[in-house]
Amino acid sequence: MDQEETEKLPRIVIIGGGFGGLLAAKKLGRVKARVTVLDKTNHHLFQPLLYQVATASLAPSDIAAAIRHVLRNQANTSVELAEVREIDVNARIVKCADPSRLKQDFEVPYDYLIVACGTRHSYFAHPEWEKLAPGLKAVEDALEIRRRFLLAFEEADRAATPDERDAWLTFVIVGAGPTGCELAGVMQEIAHGMRRDFRHVDTRDTAVILLEAGSRILPAFPEPLAARASRDLTELRVDVRTSSAVTRIEPDAVYVGDHKIRTRSVFWAAGNVASPVSKSLGVPLTRTGQVIVERDLSIPGHPNVFVIGDLAHALQKNGQPAPGVAQVAMQEGRVAARNIIATIERRPRSDFNYFNKGDLATIGRGKAIANLFGGKIQVGGRLAWFLWLGIHITYLIGFRNRLSVLLQWAYAYFTYQRGARLITETARSAVK
Amino acid sequence: MDQEETEKLPRIVIIGGGFGGLLAAKKLGRVKARVTVLDKTNHHLFQPLLYQVATASLAPSDIAAAIRHVLRNQANTSVELAEVREIDVNARIVKCADPSRLKQDFEVPYDYLIVACGTRHSYFAHPEWEKLAPGLKAVEDALEIRRRFLLAFEEADRAATPDERDAWLTFVIVGAGPTGCELAGVMQEIAHGMRRDFRHVDTRDTAVILLEAGSRILPAFPEPLAARASRDLTELRVDVRTSSAVTRIEPDAVYVGDHKIRTRSVFWAAGNVASPVSKSLGVPLTRTGQVIVERDLSIPGHPNVFVIGDLAHALQKNGQPAPGVAQVAMQEGRVAARNIIATIERRPRSDFNYFNKGDLATIGRGKAIANLFGGKIQVGGRLAWFLWLGIHITYLIGFRNRLSVLLQWAYAYFTYQRGARLITETARSAVK
Repeated sequence: MDQEETEKLPRIVIIGGGFGGLLAAKKLGRVKARVTVLDKTNHHLFQPLLYQVATASLAPSDIAAAIRHVLRNQANTSVELAEVREIDVNARIVKCADPSRLKQDFEVPYDYLIVACGTRHSYFAHPEWEKLAPGLKAVEDALEIRRRFLLAFEEADRAATPDERDAWLTFVIVGAGPTGCELAGVMQEIAHGMRRDFRHVDTRDTAVILLEAGSRILPAFPEPLAARASRDLTELRVDVRTSSAVTRIEPDAVYVGDHKIRTRSVFWAAGNVASPVSKSLGVPLTRTGQVIVERDLSIPGHPNVFVIGDLAHALQKNGQPAPGVAQVAMQEGRVAARNIIATIERRPRSDFNYFNKGDLATIGRGKAIANLFGGKIQVGGRLAWFLWLGIHITYLIGFRNRLSVLLQWAYAYFTYQRGARLITETARSAVK
Repeated sequence: MDQEETEKLPRIVIIGGGFGGLLAAKKLGRVKARVTVLDKTNHHLFQPLLYQVATASLAPSDIAAAIRHVLRNQANTSVELAEVREIDVNARIVKCADPSRLKQDFEVPYDYLIVACGTRHSYFAHPEWEKLAPGLKAVEDALEIRRRFLLAFEEADRAATPDERDAWLTFVIVGAGPTGCELAGVMQEIAHGMRRDFRHVDTRDTAVILLEAGSRILPAFPEPLAARASRDLTELRVDVRTSSAVTRIEPDAVYVGDHKIRTRSVFWAAGNVASPVSKSLGVPLTRTGQVIVERDLSIPGHPNVFVIGDLAHALQKNGQPAPGVAQVAMQEGRVAARNIIATIERRPRSDFNYFNKGDLATIGRGKAIANLFGGKIQVGGRLAWFLWLGIHITYLIGFRNRLSVLLQWAYAYFTYQRGARLITETARSAVK
């Protein structure tokens, strides 16, 4: 194909190289079109395992891969670093800044657009909590949590008073969804694994407190499974406190109403809010800023613009919105790509129907819960954990050769030792 | 032993958990003494492989391990984060700051002291070059070089003009010691490995220029071996320029006299200067701030203070100072520890005599040089490379189970793909 022919091809732009965006890009790999993937980082991140980076179990590169490398065999696809500022759906233009600020702002025109730029943390009405209680979205977040987590033991080891020591050995996690539960469980395991490394503290005195505003943990799971997970957490010596909304965060304390918990480390795994890009689409949004999409995942009035993943509010047949999980994003990515291809080829579009293969959450070594086939199969314990492990390793091996992760896990499983216990200055700590 | 008895034991303080300090600590593991290791980071770093982190081949945690974890089985040893400000040899006190600034400045008293806090980069009379041309000492440095290196290809891919693109594809490394040569070789290999990932540039157009002020590369090696390495580098398309002292660095250019080289990426592998701590010892120093030590590695007038590693200027029998390499530091660490034990046990001390097992430098895949047994055996090529590989893997496996590194290397060797190609915001980039 010569350049003139190429320039006549439709331009498909995908914003975001997460699960949804990446799957859409892959699906579009053989289409006669010019596909561009924009992301503010250069890597796709396997976010379900990010908590393992935050707890010094895996290295960032174990769970991330350069987006352009993943898509290197698609001749029709290019990848560019871009921080999307605004979308002009009438002019059909994406307005971008260079995340590294090495280049001036630029515009990317499109014929078809897939918006998959996800959510960010919501600190509700308390943006000032962000510095005190970092959340877990990007690699930089995970490294900052890792730094604070490991540093806390260093400080506990040389604390001047027992009170001070206890505050350093107390970790509070806000929000008991899958990320919060996983973080809490692993933190106790890691603390236990470090018991011989310190001379002046016993790391088994570590307290991990999991605060949940709702009446129970893991609301996306059936009650009996969540109860099982709660028992598992308690067994790992995680202090699970439901109906406990955080009302105040200070550098050395968290408050639940009038009750003060002394701690030097608070981590945020609570609310999410849509990327502000959604506002510029000019269509109805939910309270948290998600875009209410049509059944074919396009937006009202602009059939060439699709929104997928955590940013989309897509109603299922049962009238409930599809949840904000990886498998929804991936299925939506496939449907959006397929509908673009259908439109180019003048075929009818199809609707998005979420097929839930099952939900998994892990609590710690050998502990997990699985809710499969719409709740027909509910399992906990070691079986669910091996299922969790198998699915995650399969995914990681699929998107890059990550045998080393398997080894790290095998090693950690048999020895209780973890591999990435580095305290390094991070981008977040440096700007503090 | 009860607390009272413990408090009568001599206090041995080691500053620095590098090769010298760590070996000394290990040697002192069974001594009846209170041993304290102070370091400004929590990890021992296998610095000879740091260039592989800088070039996205290994993750930081592949080549680093928590110092307290390495020493966990030594009940007499504790480890503490400390940035050493000053040593008062008369009061026998080390004055420290907390690197994370969470704790106030503090003092650590000692009966015996081993100073092993190494060197830092010297930009000669140009401290302003540091921001433009980062060097390679700590994990944070490596991550910043990795960020700049990978970002350069992103920018080249979307450069507006061929001139701009070429500046992004040109990498200049200043200093042709082992680190400079290794960086240069690997950078070309990585560039080659990414050739299918970019749509608008051919990464095989990458230029790597190695600038050396001296008349030849690798001055620590015999001339024929250095010539071999130089040929290897040229074969990898590294532009080796000797007798080329840098006279000016700008954001988009490097000057060698009047000759201007357009580049957006300059990396520093040239001079070193002693840690400023050496000044506070009040003893004669060399021009670069190294401490001139006695034959037993103690300092003049203070037989209870030892200086080892890159910070020490220790004369060999032939009148030459021992070079600043890992094996010297490790041997000195052993001697200093042994001399402390001898003094405690009222036995005579022994002198330091460097036994040079051999020097190795690698240039790239299958390419290295080895100078063994005082030059009796000199080899290059694949044999030397396997020797290099074997020694480095042995060391890594010795200090922690790092099988994953072996796998990464095997994978990279057979596929030319690298595993850690993440651009992340770093502590260095954030404070820019």
